[in-house]
Amino acid sequence: MEPRTPKITDVAKLAGVSTATVSRALSRPETVAESTRNLVLAAAEQTGYRVNLSARNLRRQRTGAIMILVPNLGNPFFSEILAGIEAALSEADINMLVVDTRQAHVKPQLILEYLNASRADGIIALDGSLPDAILSVASSGNGAPPIVFACEWTPHGEFPSVRANNARGGELAVAHLAGLGHRSIGMITGPQDNVLTHARSRGALRELAARGLALDPDHVFPGDFSLNAGAGAAQAWLGLAQRPSAVFSQSDQMAFGFISELARHGVSVPGDVSVVGFDDIAIARRFIPALTTLRQPRERIGRSAAHMLINHIQTGSSPAIETTILEVELIARDSTRAVDG
Amino acid sequence: MEPRTPKITDVAKLAGVSTATVSRALSRPETVAESTRNLVLAAAEQTGYRVNLSARNLRRQRTGAIMILVPNLGNPFFSEILAGIEAALSEADINMLVVDTRQAHVKPQLILEYLNASRADGIIALDGSLPDAILSVASSGNGAPPIVFACEWTPHGEFPSVRANNARGGELAVAHLAGLGHRSIGMITGPQDNVLTHARSRGALRELAARGLALDPDHVFPGDFSLNAGAGAAQAWLGLAQRPSAVFSQSDQMAFGFISELARHGVSVPGDVSVVGFDDIAIARRFIPALTTLRQPRERIGRSAAHMLINHIQTGSSPAIETTILEVELIARDSTRAVDG
Repeated sequence: MEPRTPKITDVAKLAGVSTATVSRALSRPETVAESTRNLVLAAAEQTGYRVNLSARNLRRQRTGAIMILVPNLGNPFFSEILAGIEAALSEADINMLVVDTRQAHVKPQLILEYLNASRADGIIALDGSLPDAILSVASSGNGAPPIVFACEWTPHGEFPSVRANNARGGELAVAHLAGLGHRSIGMITGPQDNVLTHARSRGALRELAARGLALDPDHVFPGDFSLNAGAGAAQAWLGLAQRPSAVFSQSDQMAFGFISELARHGVSVPGDVSVVGFDDIAIARRFIPALTTLRQPRERIGRSAAHMLINHIQTGSSPAIETTILEVELIARDSTRAVDG
Repeated sequence: MEPRTPKITDVAKLAGVSTATVSRALSRPETVAESTRNLVLAAAEQTGYRVNLSARNLRRQRTGAIMILVPNLGNPFFSEILAGIEAALSEADINMLVVDTRQAHVKPQLILEYLNASRADGIIALDGSLPDAILSVASSGNGAPPIVFACEWTPHGEFPSVRANNARGGELAVAHLAGLGHRSIGMITGPQDNVLTHARSRGALRELAARGLALDPDHVFPGDFSLNAGAGAAQAWLGLAQRPSAVFSQSDQMAFGFISELARHGVSVPGDVSVVGFDDIAIARRFIPALTTLRQPRERIGRSAAHMLINHIQTGSSPAIETTILEVELIARDSTRAVDG
């Protein structure tokens, strides 16, 4: 005789909450108060209830795989997000199919093939620039697997997403620099058509305006989140007659490129110019100088997106258009300092 | 009427080589002379022959997926290798299932399930420390899908693999430092049970011996390839009465941690100690100082492993125990300098 398998109703009863709350607490913990979450987790542990039992049952009727669309697998930024997604999917016994959408041979046709529901139960897109052909199929609901965006999102159509509070990050970067007495603050941006660029710029501009500071157009350095773009911004900075005393770089990689290229020209960070990055990738605290930056909870973004998608697949309903926004945190280190009195 | 599909025999005829050579040139380019490779590629292009035609046919009879076992998805070191694998698999219209073998919930049982050939056509293992239970199934040949190791390999049993010439890298690191006049050279190692650690150490020791230099046991700093291990080695270095004037760090990450921690204590690289890394990850050339290191062709390692596996799957034979070793290159930058006369 097999032991009786614990059910979600057992957990709900023990925790004194509804089964809907148990489901939410286990699949989207950030939507539930911490005290409730802890109650549910304790009850789940005591009863031996495991989320992946239902996911396993589910898998037998489905493909058992979720496709992850990554804009550039060669970029270490995505490693931790993938790790978070993989952890959540593994717990639910679901496979992760990874596709690099910027590879020349990955045509929209290939992705559409998956969207026809025969090869994947759902999609997590880390790429906010998917072709319209894909988005219109994904939003049609005609048997197309659900799609959840993580980190990036698309301005075309409405899809559920999990992201960091990028605008708030822009505000915090400017607030930190202005708080140190900087009045002339420049910005190295991401790609012009990127939603992260827009949100981070919007937050920075809002905070500048709130403090009565203007952004000199010559102090905006267009980039693409890469090391090389940061080095290019340094060249532009060096060529200015009136240089900003502080720069908000919309990625850590660009900040490293910027600082490194300035160092080659004998310009010191933070001695001559203060720099704030964005992401807090692992090397940031070990760079010389250690980088002041905005920390994104990347592993949690990946986990939350996976939980959101699993929840949609399990309930079988069309995904609600929900957006989970996770907070960012300014980590002050050695690349910023107060303006000399 | 459909146009006639170009065949491998058409390519062979036009290039004036055998079909076996065409197959090798397209699936394992590093095993064929460059002139032959160029002939075959030109002929393939002229006839319109596409490798993925046969892979596509193959996929219809198989699962169309290959499993990648990664020891730590959160480590950016693996990003470029995954990108290389993904590029080669995509061209052959094969999916990539990614599993992080060090996650608590990834039990050997899960991997064995795949090895039973029902879920994946083959495996690429980036993890040289797989449990014996898995290796013995993989080597049984009883319907188990073929396995190819990339970067790391296993000392237990014989499996095909693609790797960098790690021992040669150790030799080149020591030769570079000794050539700059360093007589007292220390080493920060990877994990004690890791094949990369053994190979890199073996090469370094061989080169030291060839030059009549001894390795002081106090100058061996045990690490694990991480930033933090490098910082720990710096603490140990600072505590020594007799310090080595140069250090070979068996990963770039440890080199960054080492240099960063020394900088916090006012010790300059290369002013007070020279440092050579290993890997040449993207940030190495932008670190301050720019890091002298051994360049591993990571994207090519990933591609070659994928091509090797696809070839095994296509021929349907037990994989030959072949080892492809790709050369490393010492990139001299600013973290090393000559001993003061």
